[in-house]
Amino acid sequence: MAYSVAVAGASGYAGGELLRLLAAHPECEVRTVTGHSSAGRPLIEVQPHLRSLGHLVLQETTPQVLDGHDIVFFALPHGASGELTAQLSEVRLAVDCGADHRLRSADDWETFYGGAFSEPWEYGVPELLVAGDHGHVRQREMLTGAQRIAAPGCNASTVALSLVPGIASGVIEPDDIVSVLAVGPSGAGKAAKTHLLGAELMGTANPYAVGGSHRHIPEIRQSLRAAGASGETRISFTPVLVPMSRGILATTTARLVPGTSAADVRRAWTDAYADEYFVHLLPEGVMPRTADALGANTCLIGLAVDEAAGRVVVVAAVDNLAKGTAGAAIQSANIALGLPEATGLSVNGVAP
Amino acid sequence: MAYSVAVAGASGYAGGELLRLLAAHPECEVRTVTGHSSAGRPLIEVQPHLRSLGHLVLQETTPQVLDGHDIVFFALPHGASGELTAQLSEVRLAVDCGADHRLRSADDWETFYGGAFSEPWEYGVPELLVAGDHGHVRQREMLTGAQRIAAPGCNASTVALSLVPGIASGVIEPDDIVSVLAVGPSGAGKAAKTHLLGAELMGTANPYAVGGSHRHIPEIRQSLRAAGASGETRISFTPVLVPMSRGILATTTARLVPGTSAADVRRAWTDAYADEYFVHLLPEGVMPRTADALGANTCLIGLAVDEAAGRVVVVAAVDNLAKGTAGAAIQSANIALGLPEATGLSVNGVAP
Amino acid sequence: MAYSVAVAGASGYAGGELLRLLAAHPECEVRTVTGHSSAGRPLIEVQPHLRSLGHLVLQETTPQVLDGHDIVFFALPHGASGELTAQLSEVRLAVDCGADHRLRSADDWETFYGGAFSEPWEYGVPELLVAGDHGHVRQREMLTGAQRIAAPGCNASTVALSLVPGIASGVIEPDDIVSVLAVGPSGAGKAAKTHLLGAELMGTANPYAVGGSHRHIPEIRQSLRAAGASGETRISFTPVLVPMSRGILATTTARLVPGTSAADVRRAWTDAYADEYFVHLLPEGVMPRTADALGANTCLIGLAVDEAAGRVVVVAAVDNLAKGTAGAAIQSANIALGLPEATGLSVNGVAP
Amino acid sequence: MAYSVAVAGASGYAGGELLRLLAAHPECEVRTVTGHSSAGRPLIEVQPHLRSLGHLVLQETTPQVLDGHDIVFFALPHGASGELTAQLSEVRLAVDCGADHRLRSADDWETFYGGAFSEPWEYGVPELLVAGDHGHVRQREMLTGAQRIAAPGCNASTVALSLVPGIASGVIEPDDIVSVLAVGPSGAGKAAKTHLLGAELMGTANPYAVGGSHRHIPEIRQSLRAAGASGETRISFTPVLVPMSRGILATTTARLVPGTSAADVRRAWTDAYADEYFVHLLPEGVMPRTADALGANTCLIGLAVDEAAGRVVVVAAVDNLAKGTAGAAIQSANIALGLPEATGLSVNGVAP
Repeated sequence: MAYSVAVAGASGYAGGELLRLLAAHPECEVRTVTGHSSAGRPLIEVQPHLRSLGHLVLQETTPQVLDGHDIVFFALPHGASGELTAQLSEVRLAVDCGADHRLRSADDWETFYGGAFSEPWEYGVPELLVAGDHGHVRQREMLTGAQRIAAPGCNASTVALSLVPGIASGVIEPDDIVSVLAVGPSGAGKAAKTHLLGAELMGTANPYAVGGSHRHIPEIRQSLRAAGASGETRISFTPVLVPMSRGILATTTARLVPGTSAADVRRAWTDAYADEYFVHLLPEGVMPRTADALGANTCLIGLAVDEAAGRVVVVAAVDNLAKGTAGAAIQSANIALGLPEATGLSVNGVAP
Repeated sequence: MAYSVAVAGASGYAGGELLRLLAAHPECEVRTVTGHSSAGRPLIEVQPHLRSLGHLVLQETTPQVLDGHDIVFFALPHGASGELTAQLSEVRLAVDCGADHRLRSADDWETFYGGAFSEPWEYGVPELLVAGDHGHVRQREMLTGAQRIAAPGCNASTVALSLVPGIASGVIEPDDIVSVLAVGPSGAGKAAKTHLLGAELMGTANPYAVGGSHRHIPEIRQSLRAAGASGETRISFTPVLVPMSRGILATTTARLVPGTSAADVRRAWTDAYADEYFVHLLPEGVMPRTADALGANTCLIGLAVDEAAGRVVVVAAVDNLAKGTAGAAIQSANIALGLPEATGLSVNGVAP
Repeated sequence: MAYSVAVAGASGYAGGELLRLLAAHPECEVRTVTGHSSAGRPLIEVQPHLRSLGHLVLQETTPQVLDGHDIVFFALPHGASGELTAQLSEVRLAVDCGADHRLRSADDWETFYGGAFSEPWEYGVPELLVAGDHGHVRQREMLTGAQRIAAPGCNASTVALSLVPGIASGVIEPDDIVSVLAVGPSGAGKAAKTHLLGAELMGTANPYAVGGSHRHIPEIRQSLRAAGASGETRISFTPVLVPMSRGILATTTARLVPGTSAADVRRAWTDAYADEYFVHLLPEGVMPRTADALGANTCLIGLAVDEAAGRVVVVAAVDNLAKGTAGAAIQSANIALGLPEATGLSVNGVAP
Repeated sequence: MAYSVAVAGASGYAGGELLRLLAAHPECEVRTVTGHSSAGRPLIEVQPHLRSLGHLVLQETTPQVLDGHDIVFFALPHGASGELTAQLSEVRLAVDCGADHRLRSADDWETFYGGAFSEPWEYGVPELLVAGDHGHVRQREMLTGAQRIAAPGCNASTVALSLVPGIASGVIEPDDIVSVLAVGPSGAGKAAKTHLLGAELMGTANPYAVGGSHRHIPEIRQSLRAAGASGETRISFTPVLVPMSRGILATTTARLVPGTSAADVRRAWTDAYADEYFVHLLPEGVMPRTADALGANTCLIGLAVDEAAGRVVVVAAVDNLAKGTAGAAIQSANIALGLPEATGLSVNGVAP
């Protein structure tokens, strides 16, 4: 018998991708979708690609509407999920695709978001290595049986997956990381803003949040510290909007710990991901493209050691809406519910 | 009376852009265009956007065809311009858009290109600061009256213009630079290759030459040393193909020299470019887009200091074919010939 | 127990899409993939988005390699499938995504393709109405139990699905049809050609085969005649390459039969597709986008009556590789094999 | 001495393109730019590609601000230019890029726009043939010395230029025209609307105004009647947004008048445009791309006769902001002022 599911914030891009994936999930049945200004409209008007959900009508986002489902996915603006969740008495699993429950540091929250700090939920990137008393474990372990999950920031999880093997194995320094990301505008949401118009974004590359202000920076640092980074974690982080609707290609570099060989480096990433189904280390000399992860729950990682520069270069490709957000949410939910982790998720991209 | 001009390699992208700009140049008259497999065809068949040059027919690329022009621009594959130029007795000015004459180090040439090393010509980035016995001068001075000019590599000049103010003023370290570039595929040329097909490049970001192998690396290091970089110059350099036909958005970071303030940093770049017509430092908080430089001879620079990361972040936007190649060639030729530097060149981009 | 499947021509775009869909098909197991110049290479090198098929290696395309599978899908250049199929003794079902077996008229073949004419196979567009002795039936009936299937041309099936309801019901004239299609370049294949380079296709719209020469024209006319078109079928057909890797948006108009009301028109299309799962008539005033069909086996149809112009306007969106080619092939194979028609196929697109 | 120029509505796309072209116009000096919500801001903040106009500040759009200039260009929403112009006492030439003064029929205005009808101004497409008492003349003649000019609708002028030679020469029928246009979203303006977001437009083709509702339809019909079309002019007109920021590729077909040969057809278009500088008929078998007209004041026309379909097919490429709007405005102003028609305008596109 399938779990009953509600998606709050179903009219946006993250909500739409949750629904696309849930529609193909054999253990979930989407019963309820909610919106804000779109409440009352047929879902198909707002998400015309979701033909199989043509019977659903968007409702108001209220506790009454959401309560009683086995699982509620939230794809709401910041600040909305915590209060709603507190009023849900009969929800077995809540998964938030917003930022509210990602950060463990109230100071970081204050600095980068502001407003009331919400308690952290389990972080929805199962493959991350987390330092424990007896060596590293996977974040997966914390997700098993979880009732509250914070799906990651798409850029943050991409960079964390890029670096954590090197941090956990001690082959890279955490204190002078540089990450530059080519990103598609669907990550910026569906609200009508002039600078996100098609005419403003086609045929051009547009940087934003340059110089250390992007909200995913503390989230990355948190993952690096969790992986066992000692001392300062410092990251120069620059996202660049490029003309593709979806996708993140993160180029991240870190200084090699002195004495580290290229073989040491490759071994660290190989060991970290050899048994993972959704994170793939590509062979030496091969680099990923975002097209190869489009629509998939895959993170593809290319790895190079630049000995002249004294740096490791990690290039990671994900679909920001899939593995970056909605796919991570569903993968984490599968773990929490004891389902096979890959249920309803694909490793194959839609290319070309 | 206009200078007579020949363009060798007129069927490719760099050749086409040279012609587009020369067609609007009041002191140049394009008399001759040459090609290889396209020889014998009307230019308009191969470059259908150049309506005003519809009377020209592509000829073979031979010394006989090229000799006798006041100016010859070369847009040929590597290795072709040097030998040809040696056989031209009556050419006042030769400008090479290929790589042959850019590098001063035979070792660098051997390592990154291979084959016979050609003598270096004057480097065609007039705005670069060059350390001399009595402080810095501009590369412009070396171009005045020059007879042989090497137009720069598009990525190399973009990164050099990004960093040289900080190197020359001593506010950034040259030994741990990271540069990641979003680039359009026109920089990769017009030869039919599967990985450059439209279906392979649309909707996706594709990195290449990752890990220190890109041929523009020694050219950047050469410019930094010329600007007075002391000690090692080390750069991690990663280009990423994104879905725009033209443009480079280079995000480059370098460590701040300890004790440097944000005001020191901004002053360095302000002083370097305040009097330059084609290189613009944008106001604090403003970042450039490649669209704003499309078709223009402009390099737009945004500057941020990330104190938490201890790095300066420089974002530079150019049109790889214009200021990156053909525009730089013509700007340098203007200087060499004693014409006003901006003759035939625009600072205004074609946007949106 | 799953059917054993071979895909011949697995390194191209149609082959890749067949594999992407077959990898998710619960009743098919891809055992063999073949290529031409790519033979001997791991599939994942050539189709890096197909992670779940990372164990396959491309073999030569020979009868020996292909024979013995339950199903063989061909995605080869024209002329190759017929001869190969003749040498397969133990293949239950052959499906050709090439053009060889689509046309019933040797004259049409000679005019538009040339070379040896091959026998027609069952045409793989199940939803088409076909005039019979006792009214219309669906092409689906001919596919039931079929052993040889010709998957349709992507543009041809899109236009046929657009028009057939109006032809079959007698509300539109077949003798003055106009169809203009915005198409992505993946339909033109993966061979390296200069005019298909990314720099040639981004930021521009490029028409081709203008004036009546496109090879899908006789295929469309054949479907219209099969639907019962009386008298001449004439179609002005113009495809335009636009900057999206996948997708067809076909705008097709036909003259209304005098006396036809707008309600008659809508009824014709409603009746034709009300019970179809993969072809959707959108509500009045709603038009489809290709994004909404991306990766899906869906054909979305918008319908308008322009009374001032005396024409019906049908706008149809498909993914040329999915419903246009590989999806149609698998849907038809499902029917032939007696499987539920939608097995392994989705109606939901990957948007945005 | 240069003409003093004001541009009202300088913060939008049409206004920006007017300024880009005027900045290169040797006989015009832009003294004043006005906006609405942007009034008070430096122009460079709103149009960051216009470096050479960095000294201008946007003012309010009032008669006081605009009066006293030799020329005022209007790029305002519909309905604004007429009233403003009435209050300008000292303006030698007013050119409106909005729709207010294009239509001669108050009925058409009422049907397609609504609101108060404004008097028609001279229509700014100089190359159009206009039937007169003694054969055809050019629209150019009406523009000579004009004081009030209505720049054309970009789609309308593209289709009119496509068809008028055939109408004027009597080789095509005016009563069953079909036109389908691939268009970039800059034509839809800079107002923030969800359906114009980059994520909604990249990777997809989106039709709009299907079925006879587009406002350029009466404008096209007016041009065809002016060219001498006898009887009904009927046109099925469908624009399709495609992922390029600029450009129109209009595929337009009309039925051949019985007895017309392909040579008759080609002669009609050849005769019409042989002496025109900005409208080019391409050789037989050659079709235009929008890239080849990007940024240029060019209309490139490809022509084919489809004898099987009984139709002529005309494919026209323009830059919607340049020849489609701002270029047409300046070209017409040049004529009105007695300047050489091509002053400040280029035939060369920015490609690739």
